Amino acid sequence: MSHTVDSPEWFDALLSGQKARMGEALSVVEGAGDAARALLSRLHPHSGRAQIIGITGAPGAGKSTLVNALAIHFASSGRRVGVIAVDPSSPFTGGAVLGDRVRMSRASGHENVFIRSAATRGCLGGVARTTYDFARVFDAVGYDPVIVETVGIGQSEVDVWRIAHTPVVVEAPALGDAVQAMKAGVLEIASILCINKADLPGVDAKLVQLRELSERASVHSPGWKIPVLTTIAQTGNGVAELADAILAHGAYLRTTDRLRVLEHERAIAEIRACLQAAFVDVPLQRATRSGALERLADAVAARRMNAADAARAVETEFVASLAK
Amino acid sequence: MSHTVDSPEWFDALLSGQKARMGEALSVVEGAGDAARALLSRLHPHSGRAQIIGITGAPGAGKSTLVNALAIHFASSGRRVGVIAVDPSSPFTGGAVLGDRVRMSRASGHENVFIRSAATRGCLGGVARTTYDFARVFDAVGYDPVIVETVGIGQSEVDVWRIAHTPVVVEAPALGDAVQAMKAGVLEIASILCINKADLPGVDAKLVQLRELSERASVHSPGWKIPVLTTIAQTGNGVAELADAILAHGAYLRTTDRLRVLEHERAIAEIRACLQAAFVDVPLQRATRSGALERLADAVAARRMNAADAARAVETEFVASLAK
Repeated sequence: MSHTVDSPEWFDALLSGQKARMGEALSVVEGAGDAARALLSRLHPHSGRAQIIGITGAPGAGKSTLVNALAIHFASSGRRVGVIAVDPSSPFTGGAVLGDRVRMSRASGHENVFIRSAATRGCLGGVARTTYDFARVFDAVGYDPVIVETVGIGQSEVDVWRIAHTPVVVEAPALGDAVQAMKAGVLEIASILCINKADLPGVDAKLVQLRELSERASVHSPGWKIPVLTTIAQTGNGVAELADAILAHGAYLRTTDRLRVLEHERAIAEIRACLQAAFVDVPLQRATRSGALERLADAVAARRMNAADAARAVETEFVASLAK
Repeated sequence: MSHTVDSPEWFDALLSGQKARMGEALSVVEGAGDAARALLSRLHPHSGRAQIIGITGAPGAGKSTLVNALAIHFASSGRRVGVIAVDPSSPFTGGAVLGDRVRMSRASGHENVFIRSAATRGCLGGVARTTYDFARVFDAVGYDPVIVETVGIGQSEVDVWRIAHTPVVVEAPALGDAVQAMKAGVLEIASILCINKADLPGVDAKLVQLRELSERASVHSPGWKIPVLTTIAQTGNGVAELADAILAHGAYLRTTDRLRVLEHERAIAEIRACLQAAFVDVPLQRATRSGALERLADAVAARRMNAADAARAVETEFVASLAK
């Protein structure tokens, strides 16, 4: 295949679903810059069809295994499934724990499943921006559903409830109690509650707690009765029921005004991610490369300069570099 | 007191430690804008003396009670203690759970303790920016230590390890296990590990786990041996030992090159928070008020416009409004 990524032939091959083109498209988008913008502009009108599922919850709930099982379930019914893994990069070492990706390998071998991490080190434009852009590419090319796995509410830069149509909050019997989860606002954003590892002791008590909470009106999806489901992702138990509930939520969104409202909220969140990428992440990357950030940080640390003035200097240098 | 907040008399009264002036100063800073910038510029050279302590950990670990006990302990030895509470605002309702603040009321009655929430709704410039600015004010006015309480690593906009000199990770016996905590990178950022609620069952197992982890070289503080302590914040058990460990870590920082490195990293994080406030949060607030964001989000949701182009429109409008 000798077509370049900006040729009409390449674009047609991408839209027709060629897997190799998909990988190229995600890489183009990840690179940010003009090529990314051009590709996203061309894909944008084709998007808007996929149901975007968010899988979130505390570490230890078995999210990756559940995503794996869900992806295989949907793929087995003939759907093409996109998976975006938003890794927990350790703040200091930058090292994602490898276990999750290893466990996800079963689904990655399926011909209808495409898995990509949005937390590649050095990706330009930030994780949130990358996640939105990846979801757009998957969506436009006909992947449906797109599953976004994040590490707990707000634990990554990407808040799953901002990007997903259907946020699924995953718990496990042994992980704290529901009141604590509620305290952090987790349950307010859920459209589906799932107790994974349902073969562990404590599942009945957890069920009682979550069912009680689910009696409340759903904040995310008014009028929608939040189902509380149990799964054992390792064996596949309950995964079909979870998939059905996800599709039912998708139908609820389409038959009510809620999808329109959600798309509006998602657009605002995406605009925010673009501002963040363009005016924070990229200027800081430039200032890091040029050495300016080092000097400015030294001046701030030595109390010779305000952080606000240093920020202005970063932005001024960035704007000047664009004008060149 | 009839002096206005930009008079030399007011500034002197602030530096001399008048509590009423402190509240006014924090409000000025919270309001962002020119008055905030001017005040922060004047305070900046006075700052750099306080030890900033971060208290973080999963919901349910009893962080607020521990902060309360620590603040009283330090205050009782004659120190003035600043507390910055970064609340978990629920993404949809914006409602912080009141329990924590109620429980913190004991310390708030102490004459040497000043508590302020950095998550006030509608505060301009974002939570991260506000937290840095509050810390600067406390520091410059002579509060030492300044305790920043956040809701778990990365669960709020403010990552405590970016702002604190001494990040204390608080666990409780019943909360998951240490391997999961490590997975999320929590332990890599700790300078002190604390098991609160040490009267609950499971504390011995937790101690063994955390001690094993603490054997590793500290990523945050190379050469520093991470202490693993137990506390019962409700009764005050172990709080004096925790306070001693915190001061010992402060001494470690001052006697090694680590303080300089940390101050450099903190400056970079603060520059980032300033960029975020100036080029993301404030422009979005303006576009929300003018109604432009509504229209742009509609256009993006309807696939008539790219999010990237909408972001540019927000920024263009903002720059134009500044020029007026």
